[in-house]
Amino acid sequence: MNSIKKPQVVVDRRKCETNIRNMAAKAKKHELVFRPHFKTHQSREIGALYRSAGISRITVSSVEMAYHFASDGWKDITIAFPVNVREIEEIRRLNREIDLSVLVESAAAVRLLNEQMDVELNVFLEIDTGYGRTGVDCRNEEELDAMFHHIASARMIRLKGLLAHNGHTYHAKSVTEVINIHESSLEKLARVKEHAQLFQSDILVSIGDTPACSLSNNFSGVDEIRPGNFVYYDLQQERTGSCTMDQIALIVACPVVSVRPQNQKIVLYGGAVHLSKQSLNDNGRTVHGYLVPLTESGWGDVVRETYVTSVSQEHGIVHCGDTGFLSTVEPGDLVGILPVHACLAANLGSEVFFV
Amino acid sequence: MNSIKKPQVVVDRRKCETNIRNMAAKAKKHELVFRPHFKTHQSREIGALYRSAGISRITVSSVEMAYHFASDGWKDITIAFPVNVREIEEIRRLNREIDLSVLVESAAAVRLLNEQMDVELNVFLEIDTGYGRTGVDCRNEEELDAMFHHIASARMIRLKGLLAHNGHTYHAKSVTEVINIHESSLEKLARVKEHAQLFQSDILVSIGDTPACSLSNNFSGVDEIRPGNFVYYDLQQERTGSCTMDQIALIVACPVVSVRPQNQKIVLYGGAVHLSKQSLNDNGRTVHGYLVPLTESGWGDVVRETYVTSVSQEHGIVHCGDTGFLSTVEPGDLVGILPVHACLAANLGSEVFFV
Repeated sequence: MNSIKKPQVVVDRRKCETNIRNMAAKAKKHELVFRPHFKTHQSREIGALYRSAGISRITVSSVEMAYHFASDGWKDITIAFPVNVREIEEIRRLNREIDLSVLVESAAAVRLLNEQMDVELNVFLEIDTGYGRTGVDCRNEEELDAMFHHIASARMIRLKGLLAHNGHTYHAKSVTEVINIHESSLEKLARVKEHAQLFQSDILVSIGDTPACSLSNNFSGVDEIRPGNFVYYDLQQERTGSCTMDQIALIVACPVVSVRPQNQKIVLYGGAVHLSKQSLNDNGRTVHGYLVPLTESGWGDVVRETYVTSVSQEHGIVHCGDTGFLSTVEPGDLVGILPVHACLAANLGSEVFFV
Repeated sequence: MNSIKKPQVVVDRRKCETNIRNMAAKAKKHELVFRPHFKTHQSREIGALYRSAGISRITVSSVEMAYHFASDGWKDITIAFPVNVREIEEIRRLNREIDLSVLVESAAAVRLLNEQMDVELNVFLEIDTGYGRTGVDCRNEEELDAMFHHIASARMIRLKGLLAHNGHTYHAKSVTEVINIHESSLEKLARVKEHAQLFQSDILVSIGDTPACSLSNNFSGVDEIRPGNFVYYDLQQERTGSCTMDQIALIVACPVVSVRPQNQKIVLYGGAVHLSKQSLNDNGRTVHGYLVPLTESGWGDVVRETYVTSVSQEHGIVHCGDTGFLSTVEPGDLVGILPVHACLAANLGSEVFFV
């Protein structure tokens, strides 16, 4: 790691492999298709770790990412994002080449896909079970009915199933809250599936969030899981209880550029363009990341009371409590930052550095 | 613009040129060196607009950016970021080739630069006049004295002057607050300059923030300005009073992927990886961007009550008030988003699309 000169995403390969293995084992135990979300890493090298674990079906969140991974040999891809009809030509081309599934939640998208595809395209209907971002509201029977009708009468598209993402579990304050959101979602999806089966018998149910996939052992009625973040985990997940600090597999290594003991702080080359602006509220204080010391083979435990209080474009300000840490650090040292949201930090980094 | 298929940074070239021309004229009027900060755009094409306006001296915030622009023919570059001594070899090489200046604020950095340079290197001493990020506290006469001593006795480095960045003006609530911060900073810098002149007679004073450079007409004691954001401006600057909505030269064009009139919202392909997570508080509501309609040659006025309420990795949720806008929009439409912080949005985009 001593070769690192500027902010760099560093991944602990062993932790990453363990995270993949654990989730794959859980999927197997519950007889679920494991279709990990690759938006978290967007990395061919992490993709290779998945491949070694026997994974062949993946999820992405844009047509661009689907092309990126298709060109790396992935042949079964779901784009779990409401279809962007401006890219319909790109979808048509990719659908000729791989086993592609896309997400619909509007009659307009169904109509356009049906008109434009030249090979039958798999679609999932996105169901909103409470997150409130996208998807047909699971309580809106009229709209569900209309969508099932549209899809059933569209010759070039085939309903593969129902897809939901409970993104609100990311902001849950406790394990119980995650479980409650998840179980309530399973009930809602079961009801929507009954409705869907009036139109078609085989209906897959696909869910996805890392907190529920990490914490729950009830996957009743579920056929497929699509978690992504768990491959790295992060502070947000640790807060929710989805992982321990030890399971977090990604840090951003940052050079120290300023040491100011009189202000109990150090400043890093490592800011919003490396860590993102994402923060979490930790007992009233705003945290943009926790500091970890680097070791020969990775990183050590969180240095308590030592956290990133704010970021500007390239700077990260680290408050250092009375830990003695400040007297050991000097400009030019390299430290690790556990990010709040690993997906955003990974997106901002270019290449992954493995330890 | 109809060719745009996915989230895309769009720049109004005319507004951009006007912003550059206005700031250059102001610098000229006050007899200031105009050394714009290129971290805002990181774009060679925007660099070309500056070049056309007669600019030859620039500011960047990393060694990497300095190389990026040096390779595009820029010969006079200040890296306005506390020197990252892990990149000292890269600094040495660049210093042989161009007129380079770096920023120091620690004895350790001065010592290492002096040991490692093979051609005399210009340095600015960073002065903290109240922002509290990096730099020597302007009130700390002992540390200032020590730093002037260190620099004066370092054979391979030459003190070019004092550099301050009042980043706290970005969060000022009013024009008066910006002016107060600025004027107080000028007084502080004048006192530090007197101190510096005990060691050396020629001391430049360089300041930089867009709010003060836009709003003040008092540059007493200042030799150089380094604003960057003004080339685009953004919602944060508009809030402070540094610009009008009309002067904002950058939007992110985003495809609409979901329209939900019953929830008074639309959802965009355009999220945290396009707009960043930066938000502002607008009368108690969290705003990640305002929506503007696209026109033949650019974009129209802000659609009031229509703003991005939240972003996830790829999604932007737009609340649409009772404006009639919702009844006109459908999936596949392209809309513009005025970002909160243009620097971060520009950093996330790849190439600039000019209108």
